[in-house]
Amino acid sequence: MVEAATAEKTEKKKPSGLEDAVVGNTSISTIIEKEATLIYGGYTIEDLAANASFEEVIHLIWYGKLPNQVELAELNSKLVANRPAPEGVLAMLRNLPQHGNSMDVLRTAVSALALYDEEAQEMSHEANLRKAIRITAQIPTLVAAYERLGQGQEPIAPSSHLSHASNFLYMLEGEEPNALRAETIDTALILHADHELNASAFATIVTASTLSDLHSAIVTAIGTLKGPLHGGANQAVMKTLEQIDAAGLDAGAWTAEQFANKKLVMGFGHRVYKHGDPRAFILKKLAQQLGQQNGESKWYDMSAAIERAVLEIRGLYPNVDFYSASTYRALGIKTGLYIPLFVVSRVVGWIGHAFEQYADNRIIRPRAEYIGPEGLKYGPISNRK
Amino acid sequence: MVEAATAEKTEKKKPSGLEDAVVGNTSISTIIEKEATLIYGGYTIEDLAANASFEEVIHLIWYGKLPNQVELAELNSKLVANRPAPEGVLAMLRNLPQHGNSMDVLRTAVSALALYDEEAQEMSHEANLRKAIRITAQIPTLVAAYERLGQGQEPIAPSSHLSHASNFLYMLEGEEPNALRAETIDTALILHADHELNASAFATIVTASTLSDLHSAIVTAIGTLKGPLHGGANQAVMKTLEQIDAAGLDAGAWTAEQFANKKLVMGFGHRVYKHGDPRAFILKKLAQQLGQQNGESKWYDMSAAIERAVLEIRGLYPNVDFYSASTYRALGIKTGLYIPLFVVSRVVGWIGHAFEQYADNRIIRPRAEYIGPEGLKYGPISNRK
Repeated sequence: MVEAATAEKTEKKKPSGLEDAVVGNTSISTIIEKEATLIYGGYTIEDLAANASFEEVIHLIWYGKLPNQVELAELNSKLVANRPAPEGVLAMLRNLPQHGNSMDVLRTAVSALALYDEEAQEMSHEANLRKAIRITAQIPTLVAAYERLGQGQEPIAPSSHLSHASNFLYMLEGEEPNALRAETIDTALILHADHELNASAFATIVTASTLSDLHSAIVTAIGTLKGPLHGGANQAVMKTLEQIDAAGLDAGAWTAEQFANKKLVMGFGHRVYKHGDPRAFILKKLAQQLGQQNGESKWYDMSAAIERAVLEIRGLYPNVDFYSASTYRALGIKTGLYIPLFVVSRVVGWIGHAFEQYADNRIIRPRAEYIGPEGLKYGPISNRK
Repeated sequence: MVEAATAEKTEKKKPSGLEDAVVGNTSISTIIEKEATLIYGGYTIEDLAANASFEEVIHLIWYGKLPNQVELAELNSKLVANRPAPEGVLAMLRNLPQHGNSMDVLRTAVSALALYDEEAQEMSHEANLRKAIRITAQIPTLVAAYERLGQGQEPIAPSSHLSHASNFLYMLEGEEPNALRAETIDTALILHADHELNASAFATIVTASTLSDLHSAIVTAIGTLKGPLHGGANQAVMKTLEQIDAAGLDAGAWTAEQFANKKLVMGFGHRVYKHGDPRAFILKKLAQQLGQQNGESKWYDMSAAIERAVLEIRGLYPNVDFYSASTYRALGIKTGLYIPLFVVSRVVGWIGHAFEQYADNRIIRPRAEYIGPEGLKYGPISNRK
């Protein structure tokens, strides 16, 4: 029997990763292949990055339309009013070990938010919208608070007049960002708000498909984004840039050597965007402008040199992760906060996908091919090898 | 454009729930349709329930074989040694609001375990096995501690000589269970340890597929099991029994009336087990024996009457959730702890599925059909309706 099982194992199929399997419908975002762009609710990412605010994008993703003035004011005032996190969760952050993994902390803190949310178990769409506001508004507060506590500093109470994006920088630094920094962080949030049914959005809807609550679905997403094959990529890009810088290498020469040694260069290529990820081009410009403003262009310059070398050697274009690294660096955001910053934005898309799942639900339960033994019989433990 | 989008929406497909989509391989468990039974690693669930201990089943699921004496002693001693939860997490439980949703608390506490686990970010299989022991050993401790705190009682330190199953009852009650209670809880854990790629096991591997860590994968699973379409079913059965009892109704007559009014009777029918879920038959016998021992057979009697009526009227057999309700009631476990008790057992299967995913990984990312609008252009907010 054991031998038979072994024989079967050699025939096992490669895992499909469900590539191209269609699990449901979405109206939130899609990649338009022929135009090599990403759209949210019908608008290209270039159009939204150039013209919209992150708050308008939140409305677009949750309600399927850009807001009018009344709707935007209402959404914004609810977000602002809900920025302060529950005292109990802030107290928890103070009691947790310092310098814990920032994603483990965020996963724990967002999970704990449910215990302070009187509507945590309510499943009406109206209750879910109110929870969506609270979760989205409080995630930046939690990220910034734990970061400051780790530096021995008191958390900064959220501003009530700054935008969602600017308020995040303010709570980290205690200073209101200037115009270019404010525009850059707002644009970065817009660019990361959704991207079809990626692994974390998919995990969100698997959890939601048992009709589990919104906090559970978002906690699932945070834990899924954490993985290096998903949210961790821009962090990996930044670590590469730091290594090149610390070793005093020429970025173009380093790139050529990586490829010569058959090693990876992180942040390039995309299954669908064959001529470049539109989000990367937008971020590249912001990284350049911020570098100039800061008087420290080296991260941008290194990135641009790597980009040229990869295109020349491999014909590959950068993806969103590549230029978000130097952009965040120029914003003064620590590498350990890159994935939490991703959450600050992507939570909006996750919530949108959870809403779609709740509205037209079927439990998500695929099959696995059983390749283990069959027909075994329990026998005395003393007979076992 | 908006009209075109509306027209498309009317043609949208029903969500597939990925029914019959094969996502990968497993050696952990499968339903053998022709024998109408469930197997773990080659052994039928009847065989394991009658002969094995839960600890042996843990070994079977994680290592693919029943343990010999040395292996079982080693696994058991590691589990026992790791039963005490980190002081920091116990302190967190004390500080959380009392009487919070037990699954929200467990999700938060297991997430927090990562912050006290020095190997939380380690991804070697050896490190994952050590974390698997800690997570599995500490979940009963956390569940029992919060339950007692909610009753104004001090948590009870884990026993070092009781089995995994008996120790859970001991930490809840402060008394060692008698032989029938010990056997019943052990068998209940065996029956719930795995069940193919159900929604929570699937969510586990989606999170694991980004190469996120084991705590993230288990936190995802807890949030997914919480849903009423998944782990919540036996709780729903018990609430039904309580309602029938409180109203002083005849259970058979109540069942007939439910069907006459086109209402559901929870805990019946199964997509695959057409002639009954083998786990239900095993639990039925235990519920009966325990009821006799307790001198309170009413929950078993009501359940049996509903079973007869459903079979007569609809030809449906009970599933595992139906008789786990009266079994847990006879064990003195509160209805609010039914899903956490499910976690105490199922975490073993989730960990097994995470191990399989890590060993042969491909990121899980299906597609969604985009049914939203296209070609929209951002315009001034004052022009929006």
